[in-house]
Amino acid sequence: MRPRIDLARLRADVEAVNELGRIPGRPGINRVSFSPQDMAGRRWLIGRMQEAGLAARMDPVGNVFGRWEAGRGPAVLAGSHLDTVPDGGPFDGTLGVLAALEAVRAMKDAGIAPARPVEVVCTADEEGRFGGMLGSQAICGEAGAEWIARARDEAGKPLVQALAEAGLDPSPEATAGAARDLSDIACFLELHVEQGPVLERAAEHIGIAEAVTGVFNWTVTLRGEANHSGTTPMDLRRDAFRGMAEFGASIPAILARAGGPDARITVGQAALAPNFPHSVAGEARFSIIGRDARDEGMQAMAAACEAEIAKAAGAHGLDFEIDRQSWLPPTRLDAGLADRLEALSRAAGFATRRMPSGAGHDAQTFARHVPAGLIFVPSVRGISHAPEEWTEWEDIARGAQLLADAVAALAG
Amino acid sequence: MRPRIDLARLRADVEAVNELGRIPGRPGINRVSFSPQDMAGRRWLIGRMQEAGLAARMDPVGNVFGRWEAGRGPAVLAGSHLDTVPDGGPFDGTLGVLAALEAVRAMKDAGIAPARPVEVVCTADEEGRFGGMLGSQAICGEAGAEWIARARDEAGKPLVQALAEAGLDPSPEATAGAARDLSDIACFLELHVEQGPVLERAAEHIGIAEAVTGVFNWTVTLRGEANHSGTTPMDLRRDAFRGMAEFGASIPAILARAGGPDARITVGQAALAPNFPHSVAGEARFSIIGRDARDEGMQAMAAACEAEIAKAAGAHGLDFEIDRQSWLPPTRLDAGLADRLEALSRAAGFATRRMPSGAGHDAQTFARHVPAGLIFVPSVRGISHAPEEWTEWEDIARGAQLLADAVAALAG
Repeated sequence: MRPRIDLARLRADVEAVNELGRIPGRPGINRVSFSPQDMAGRRWLIGRMQEAGLAARMDPVGNVFGRWEAGRGPAVLAGSHLDTVPDGGPFDGTLGVLAALEAVRAMKDAGIAPARPVEVVCTADEEGRFGGMLGSQAICGEAGAEWIARARDEAGKPLVQALAEAGLDPSPEATAGAARDLSDIACFLELHVEQGPVLERAAEHIGIAEAVTGVFNWTVTLRGEANHSGTTPMDLRRDAFRGMAEFGASIPAILARAGGPDARITVGQAALAPNFPHSVAGEARFSIIGRDARDEGMQAMAAACEAEIAKAAGAHGLDFEIDRQSWLPPTRLDAGLADRLEALSRAAGFATRRMPSGAGHDAQTFARHVPAGLIFVPSVRGISHAPEEWTEWEDIARGAQLLADAVAALAG
Repeated sequence: MRPRIDLARLRADVEAVNELGRIPGRPGINRVSFSPQDMAGRRWLIGRMQEAGLAARMDPVGNVFGRWEAGRGPAVLAGSHLDTVPDGGPFDGTLGVLAALEAVRAMKDAGIAPARPVEVVCTADEEGRFGGMLGSQAICGEAGAEWIARARDEAGKPLVQALAEAGLDPSPEATAGAARDLSDIACFLELHVEQGPVLERAAEHIGIAEAVTGVFNWTVTLRGEANHSGTTPMDLRRDAFRGMAEFGASIPAILARAGGPDARITVGQAALAPNFPHSVAGEARFSIIGRDARDEGMQAMAAACEAEIAKAAGAHGLDFEIDRQSWLPPTRLDAGLADRLEALSRAAGFATRRMPSGAGHDAQTFARHVPAGLIFVPSVRGISHAPEEWTEWEDIARGAQLLADAVAALAG
């Protein structure tokens, strides 16, 4: 039997949990990690899991599991997260958790008796209030006691205090218990909204992620000399704006040299000093976010960026400084699992493409330890992390059906 | 007889008036227009003029004149201004006023009996607290009652209130009296620090300005779409930073096309929105200050800027808007007078160059009505409008001597 998802049931769940994310006066969905709304969502989920006949529990860092104790051997894990950014959208994370629950219900409705356990998981703090993917890292043994003791949010609140206020036990003995025996996990599956425009523009239904792109985050400072815009001839200037502009204009050359089709370079933040129309800029400071799905692409792109910065600085007599704030290497997702997801998607008649994930997801944490698969459904206008985030229900139906098909196939 | 300036006497005057510009806790010279310090400086000047035997007076907008009633016919006017920007330097404006006074004293010391009257002038609000060159515009009949009634400073204080607080009569009947009979002015001479690096780099003593460059002041807004830096492929972006950068990189092409050797383009102010490293910039807003000594150069440069903005916007799917805030055409200074100043400078043995003035000066107001000449002395490192503004005393001696030679020659 093939499991058939019930879109009305899934939709009712999405709408119900998002009522727990409303805050008067805030426009979007607000279930920021460990907030009362987030914890209410997790408790509500435990109730829905129990209704579905699952053994539900919350671990010491807030991860929720609903286990279908069936067959034997390691479990098929499927899910995502219920926490949101402030004023987030209705689907980010939420869809992956509730579609996994719906997959289990659809399997049960179809009378499927899986050959191995199936678990629905809702991870804690995927959005990174305390640094990034706390829940999946804790499950995978990557968030040790020291990390947990040190983590603080932007307002300076310690994670251990937020855990305690959420009714959890932040003691090292307790949080250490969040680490799962990974030999008990056969694989991890995540359904997520794309958060980008690729599927919508191509009018495709399903994206199968092959990798989560790596990302480096630099802040570049170019230093020249502030001067009068009228009395300083062009050839006697050390104009930091000109250096920044020439770096920006070199982005196509960097991409051509670094070569990866998924390479992305973004300058999203920039500031001049003294930042006055009549003054040649003495300083320009700007961000560079570089992304690529391949390690060698990341390396080549970083080298090309540095060369172009040096060239632009040299052309204008500028000193430069690169603050290399972070370097996260790309994560390959399991190729065999991606092949299997793609075959299932095509068998279901869905227009399907393989693609990288430009954003980070729990699947990339799990991928370091177990085979992990990541399924995308289209995002209207590519908008996410905003109240306007939307995915059409027919697209959700296709994604949830594929997840159910995949869980059934992998647990079968 | 040739007048011989007394550098020690001039230096003592500069140092004395700058004591009237000190404000505890502020680093530079502070005689902002119509401040108590500015008015004290003007009253001090009247005293010095009287000591020199001049008929001194302050007009209703604060201009100070010291007239040497000699010979007959229209007067030779020489001077500059005593007001400063906040935390300004010791010489800007001040030097031109006190060197003109020293020229008169040197002529008297030399027993010169001029064929026509000589007047030392100290203009009011040259720095533009109320919009720009109030004093010289009032003298030349360009600042009418309506202009004076409307003018406000950045804090919103009306000019008429500032005039009244400074002890002046702001009534239209009074201020109208500041307009001079221009047939009584033979010419205007101004000595000023260069405020740029050209003379210092060339190791030259004297610059003779041929024109004051025109200037246009635009604010450009490029509008694209803010997107996630990871999930938005390069070819689906409408990246406003990229448009701004490509305009910036096109500055050499604009200058090559517009052609004038004195053309200058400055982007000194820039801002992105949302200005977040992980977001493609949905908007970029930046200033363009364009300058040229020739009208046709201004026009060509503006057209080339607009073409390059349109090209950069088109390449990235951006909308653009140009707010043309101001357009001041170039002002030619009197060529015959410049020739005469150059000949006097070379005769004195000074290394001399003709050059445009990139900054605005009272000479450009007068130049619209009477022959006007503008003499530059080197600025150390080109710094001006800052406490670090400096000109070596030997350079001041040469500039003041040339001014004295010129006043004597023109009044002779």
